[in-house]
Amino acid sequence: MARPARSTARVPVHRYRDGAVRRSRDTVSLEEPLEIRVRPAGATAGVAIAITMRTPGEDFELVAGFLLTEGVIAAPREVLEFTYCRSGSEPQEYNVVEARLAPGVGVDLDRLSRNVFTSSSCGVCGKASLEALELDGCAPLPDEGTLRLDPERLAALPDLLRDGQSDFDRTGGIHAAGLADARGALARVHEDVGRHNAVDKAIGTAFLDGALPLGDRALVVSGRASFEIVQKALAGGVAAVVAVGAPSSLAVDLARRFNVTLAGFTRGGGFNLYAGAQRVLRTDGEG
Amino acid sequence: MARPARSTARVPVHRYRDGAVRRSRDTVSLEEPLEIRVRPAGATAGVAIAITMRTPGEDFELVAGFLLTEGVIAAPREVLEFTYCRSGSEPQEYNVVEARLAPGVGVDLDRLSRNVFTSSSCGVCGKASLEALELDGCAPLPDEGTLRLDPERLAALPDLLRDGQSDFDRTGGIHAAGLADARGALARVHEDVGRHNAVDKAIGTAFLDGALPLGDRALVVSGRASFEIVQKALAGGVAAVVAVGAPSSLAVDLARRFNVTLAGFTRGGGFNLYAGAQRVLRTDGEG
Repeated sequence: MARPARSTARVPVHRYRDGAVRRSRDTVSLEEPLEIRVRPAGATAGVAIAITMRTPGEDFELVAGFLLTEGVIAAPREVLEFTYCRSGSEPQEYNVVEARLAPGVGVDLDRLSRNVFTSSSCGVCGKASLEALELDGCAPLPDEGTLRLDPERLAALPDLLRDGQSDFDRTGGIHAAGLADARGALARVHEDVGRHNAVDKAIGTAFLDGALPLGDRALVVSGRASFEIVQKALAGGVAAVVAVGAPSSLAVDLARRFNVTLAGFTRGGGFNLYAGAQRVLRTDGEG
Repeated sequence: MARPARSTARVPVHRYRDGAVRRSRDTVSLEEPLEIRVRPAGATAGVAIAITMRTPGEDFELVAGFLLTEGVIAAPREVLEFTYCRSGSEPQEYNVVEARLAPGVGVDLDRLSRNVFTSSSCGVCGKASLEALELDGCAPLPDEGTLRLDPERLAALPDLLRDGQSDFDRTGGIHAAGLADARGALARVHEDVGRHNAVDKAIGTAFLDGALPLGDRALVVSGRASFEIVQKALAGGVAAVVAVGAPSSLAVDLARRFNVTLAGFTRGGGFNLYAGAQRVLRTDGEG
């Protein structure tokens, strides 16, 4: 059972360049959760051992590589079959892969769960995640009372973030995140080898300062905007995410659904707006 | 109890530029695991809920941000105290932080473990991880019978990877990984929004083809080289990791310990070698 091959999506976008806005469409990389299940020989059902946010395509190869590099399997013959599986009457979303192990291949599920390391939150599928956020009381952000950010100030934020990085000049490779206000001032720059950790440090600092919710702030990140970055912003009530890099499809979906302003490719004085353009541009959307 | 502030490390390196090699030292970002524990009021011990690979510094803020964005806590007063904790007689490594919850703050640990998503393997501390790899039979790679790679061919690999990316031109933001042989030929390019997923796809494809161990191959990655990237290479028996971006401290440690060749900043015809230089340079290390 092969999955339909699709690794990108087209989304509407406002392109801001040289002071002018143009409505357009942009291609973003698909990001979808994949639940990895292992089914020992003789078991009637598989056990979920991991969920990873991935770009669809080569899913069985991804699961094989994951199981090998996690030490679950050591030879191709140890897996009889990889299959996509659906749960009950739900439509097939190709987001759950089960590896059926050959007889005699033992799996220590306890050891596995002790050794995997946890990176961020996510439900079993994007849809489930979005619903969980709503259940947890994350309503869409209002326009009233939240950030308004001039496009020139937004465009300048990545340079401010870069100027505030103390380790980047020395190492040439560390992520940064910071919170900016409507005047375009950046409070403090937080660095980490992990994109999501830099964001947790930024939001955690504001949280401990009693500054949440952060509806009058923008989260500026040095890398790409994935689902988990927008999800973390939303958990802090942040009104805008400004990324130097590209957004993923699921980041765009989440930002649109919860009215979080999402800017990507913020470099060279320009940026693309994927959601919440009304906080940056005039309400007619043209500047 | 504050942690000594240090976020970078100095490591020896061979710099290859314009056909010449120079021995030097380079500054890399520290990468160390952080175990996050939550201790409900009245409990005698904390429960480990996550391990993340992070750059030391702002650890309590990181944990606060993580607990907030995972939905574990909602207000600063819900945590009475953050502390570093040591286990038994082990030396303090500042790699375990416990959040002691206020009375009345409930935590559904089952829900939490269901909702966190798993990214890759890692032990509780870097040392434990390295030991686990040895216990799993990962001995240091031999020099004999493994890859020899001409420096000019190594330097050309990132351009080959980039040329093979089908989605990058359309999206401007997706990671790639591929396996190269000693002639500098790249078999196939694997793309994903997640760095580690692209690597799992590359190694998983070779694994399913029955091509492991990959001692005559180099893993080329479009991003940075973190601990988990080198760990995955090692699990596949890959002799070299060639990264376009910077390596982390733990990636360098792991590569040196297991004799994996590690190149970083592979761009513009040059690169830095952090480990296993003998596979690329003459044995006197000077080109």
